[in-house]
Amino acid sequence: MTEPATLKFQHIGLIGRHEREPRVDETLRITQEFLDAIGVDAREYESTEALLASKRCELAIVVGGDGSLLGAARELSAADVPVLGINLGRLGFLTDILPAQLETRLREILSGDYVEEQRFLLDAELLRDGKTCDRGDALNDVVLRNAAANMLEFELYVDRDFVYTQRSDGLIVSTPTGSTAYVLSAGGPIMHPSLNAMVLVPLAPHTLSTRPLVVDGDSALRIVVNEHKDARPLVSCDGHLEFEYLPGDELRLRKKDCPLRLIHPRNHSFYEACRDKLGWGNRPGGH
Amino acid sequence: MTEPATLKFQHIGLIGRHEREPRVDETLRITQEFLDAIGVDAREYESTEALLASKRCELAIVVGGDGSLLGAARELSAADVPVLGINLGRLGFLTDILPAQLETRLREILSGDYVEEQRFLLDAELLRDGKTCDRGDALNDVVLRNAAANMLEFELYVDRDFVYTQRSDGLIVSTPTGSTAYVLSAGGPIMHPSLNAMVLVPLAPHTLSTRPLVVDGDSALRIVVNEHKDARPLVSCDGHLEFEYLPGDELRLRKKDCPLRLIHPRNHSFYEACRDKLGWGNRPGGH
Amino acid sequence: MTEPATLKFQHIGLIGRHEREPRVDETLRITQEFLDAIGVDAREYESTEALLASKRCELAIVVGGDGSLLGAARELSAADVPVLGINLGRLGFLTDILPAQLETRLREILSGDYVEEQRFLLDAELLRDGKTCDRGDALNDVVLRNAAANMLEFELYVDRDFVYTQRSDGLIVSTPTGSTAYVLSAGGPIMHPSLNAMVLVPLAPHTLSTRPLVVDGDSALRIVVNEHKDARPLVSCDGHLEFEYLPGDELRLRKKDCPLRLIHPRNHSFYEACRDKLGWGNRPGGH
Amino acid sequence: MTEPATLKFQHIGLIGRHEREPRVDETLRITQEFLDAIGVDAREYESTEALLASKRCELAIVVGGDGSLLGAARELSAADVPVLGINLGRLGFLTDILPAQLETRLREILSGDYVEEQRFLLDAELLRDGKTCDRGDALNDVVLRNAAANMLEFELYVDRDFVYTQRSDGLIVSTPTGSTAYVLSAGGPIMHPSLNAMVLVPLAPHTLSTRPLVVDGDSALRIVVNEHKDARPLVSCDGHLEFEYLPGDELRLRKKDCPLRLIHPRNHSFYEACRDKLGWGNRPGGH
Repeated sequence: MTEPATLKFQHIGLIGRHEREPRVDETLRITQEFLDAIGVDAREYESTEALLASKRCELAIVVGGDGSLLGAARELSAADVPVLGINLGRLGFLTDILPAQLETRLREILSGDYVEEQRFLLDAELLRDGKTCDRGDALNDVVLRNAAANMLEFELYVDRDFVYTQRSDGLIVSTPTGSTAYVLSAGGPIMHPSLNAMVLVPLAPHTLSTRPLVVDGDSALRIVVNEHKDARPLVSCDGHLEFEYLPGDELRLRKKDCPLRLIHPRNHSFYEACRDKLGWGNRPGGH
Repeated sequence: MTEPATLKFQHIGLIGRHEREPRVDETLRITQEFLDAIGVDAREYESTEALLASKRCELAIVVGGDGSLLGAARELSAADVPVLGINLGRLGFLTDILPAQLETRLREILSGDYVEEQRFLLDAELLRDGKTCDRGDALNDVVLRNAAANMLEFELYVDRDFVYTQRSDGLIVSTPTGSTAYVLSAGGPIMHPSLNAMVLVPLAPHTLSTRPLVVDGDSALRIVVNEHKDARPLVSCDGHLEFEYLPGDELRLRKKDCPLRLIHPRNHSFYEACRDKLGWGNRPGGH
Repeated sequence: MTEPATLKFQHIGLIGRHEREPRVDETLRITQEFLDAIGVDAREYESTEALLASKRCELAIVVGGDGSLLGAARELSAADVPVLGINLGRLGFLTDILPAQLETRLREILSGDYVEEQRFLLDAELLRDGKTCDRGDALNDVVLRNAAANMLEFELYVDRDFVYTQRSDGLIVSTPTGSTAYVLSAGGPIMHPSLNAMVLVPLAPHTLSTRPLVVDGDSALRIVVNEHKDARPLVSCDGHLEFEYLPGDELRLRKKDCPLRLIHPRNHSFYEACRDKLGWGNRPGGH
Repeated sequence: MTEPATLKFQHIGLIGRHEREPRVDETLRITQEFLDAIGVDAREYESTEALLASKRCELAIVVGGDGSLLGAARELSAADVPVLGINLGRLGFLTDILPAQLETRLREILSGDYVEEQRFLLDAELLRDGKTCDRGDALNDVVLRNAAANMLEFELYVDRDFVYTQRSDGLIVSTPTGSTAYVLSAGGPIMHPSLNAMVLVPLAPHTLSTRPLVVDGDSALRIVVNEHKDARPLVSCDGHLEFEYLPGDELRLRKKDCPLRLIHPRNHSFYEACRDKLGWGNRPGGH
């Protein structure tokens, strides 16, 4: 086996989610063996933290579904380490290498035949009495919702502009990356990953003319929840990290400085993933 | 009355839609008198063509609703003449000077205290046997639909990517400017006018998972309608110009080179127009 | 003042929500004075419980908004006491007498010139290990949702039929009465109050082809939430009463035996309330 | 082969759509042979008209998809002849016998082991100057739309009630049967076939608070399109029969007297067809 004289990535860290998925171990093993065979220094890490602590990896390979890559994305982006996702047999939006194509695609990518996309993250900052009291970041979305059964009432500002006072179950702010995830279920549009934009989608808005709103990705958003006895607002980032919000607090959202560097095979198509995962018509050339 | 030493626009053309609206004449008259009084060379024209043929105007002022400005936009953008819209008492998205504020706002704008926005237009080109057979342009939207009661089946390509084969009543392709017009009724998101993006919204799509799709404003779109005995596709631009489409024809859409230069007063807010026209909550500061 | 020889209702109980609304007291006082003047035995009660405990009232008059009537509806329906709603100046769906028309409308109604509608309620019963562990009822809606940020997964059965396994933020089951309330914000259809039907509307369903489902009002619904570490399902009735749901519990919903008897003036129109409250076009006869 | 002493249907007519579908001929042949073998008088007819002209058939069997049965439904319902649908291998909402189960299901049905559902049809009548000028009927839906690119403006009345003046691309009025067909693409709810209700769904309504409206199946609807230079309204029934509408005409819709008698196998489930055709989660009992 003659390998390319120079490999694009010499030191690679592998990460997998092991719970309940024997296929993860199997795929990790095959990946490790292949990388060993072609002379790449590859090593599996227990966590993204461990991978980054090693300070050796020029590339992280995540084995699992989109959720696994999502879990690693925030730390990898902060550390400026690019990531490649290998799925478990079902195409993902983020993990687009199928196990069956693993060797072919890895060979291409290591020889430099790949596409690097930059996916921006959201920075969510909660201010209380003017001071930051909590902070999170999200590759997909930041969601404000009420822990109680009642509606929230909040005001939205985009940059210096007051947008509206909204009464609703909450608000999703999504990146283009997140537009094919949770916000899609809530009525948001699909946004091509290359867009520099965020979409704001209300959850069950009281005013029926409220619609999803797409704003510039460099906007600074401010959300202030009005005081109400039943207001118990919560903020979640990528469906996980939650912080509590007191009426009067201000939630500030903006794009993070460090994007996620996502590696795709050359033949990657965002729309192919849409067709596969969303059941769109996929018959180019007619019936 | 002391006027600014230098006026930003010395030669101004006025356009109004006269049918059924005495208020148009009244507002045109007041505008003319005010501009005369401050020493601007202002003249009313019967049409946008006549205004442009004069080759004198540095600014066009359109009196009427958003529809009136829409009618003038395509020619004004091609000729690179900026436009200011005065409405008839009801705030528009494009015509944002109320008659009651006419003199104050005009004075500010003529002294250079204004904002110029660039709004892009769509170029729609129909190819038959590889040759352009029809052409149109639109500030708001290009709509493909079937003149017959049946569904259309067509393929969509964005740049080099195949997106989907869709069966539906048709497809709306809208600019950010158009996002508050027709496409909003069809389920599209609101896009801030500053975005460099287009939104594609299907009309009654057969596949229930089809969603509005937001793509980069510099994308080249291609739509090919499949042959079917009941396919009688029509293309309309901004709700007017229609051309017939034969199965096998290819509709190409892309951003036009020349944007519309839209003049706003300094205090202009897109969201204020949304609140006013869409009935959004408008109570900054609480109940 | 000559009153009708026989008044339809001789003993009337008045209920008002007093907090923060001086208009309630004012309207209660005017109503009391009018009823005294025409010789009706009318008395104000502190609560619906007190009104019913008196065992005298043939009619309850609720002063306030739809929310006030909603609060009294469950007890009044169980006791088979009809109810009339007087609003505070803004038309409601349930409280459709404006203060300005109070005397005219009351006189008509007391003389028997009215319409009685029967509005059914939902009975929600939670079964744990086959035994009822909690129970509630609702005039508008029963809502199942997750207290955690994650999706729920549950199975729905209508009568003996399995409908689907759904992954979503939750499910709203609404009566026709509730169809103009919360479920409307979540994408439900408007159902005429006379319909014997329920509508089931998912909250942010994972499967994009999920749609509101309208079923017969006499259906028995069963909902079983699947076990998941992040499942913390909650059930609320008319936005208030909440009970916790453990995975494996079964939520049963069916129509209650006793409907609410809602009294309307003769000229009452459901669609007029829709036009007024939803901003529908209201120009019969043209522009 | 011992057959039941008494067969429920002795004379059966077969109908198939022959164009482009060799599977239709094959399935017709198998059905004919099976019915011959068990001693039923079965005959194939070229059209529903020919079948009915024979005056012999106690049951019509339609081979094809839902569209084929839809084409025969209007005449069969008027003649009170029940119908059974055999599909071509893909479950339909109306044609729910798969070719592979043909003999088993037919045997059950002929022995009386079946369910008969009554599906109501809509009667559409166009009045000009107070006189009926055109008429159609529909099992699925009646659609009013504009042949031109512009909006229609029309008034809707339900029984004696004015509902709204609507500006939109048109209006779909659908039966429960039609609720899984075209109107579903336009945002309508799914209605269980047993409901006595119609749903009215606007196409791209100008007023954003317009929602699908479910009314009693015995309602009489009246729709009057306002005069406008660009109004060229068309009415279609089940996507086919179209008649032109002049401004000032009145379209009247009501339930037809004669329902379609639709025969199902005993184990038929509406929700199974939904799960199969709409891709709903179909995992009773968990993951």
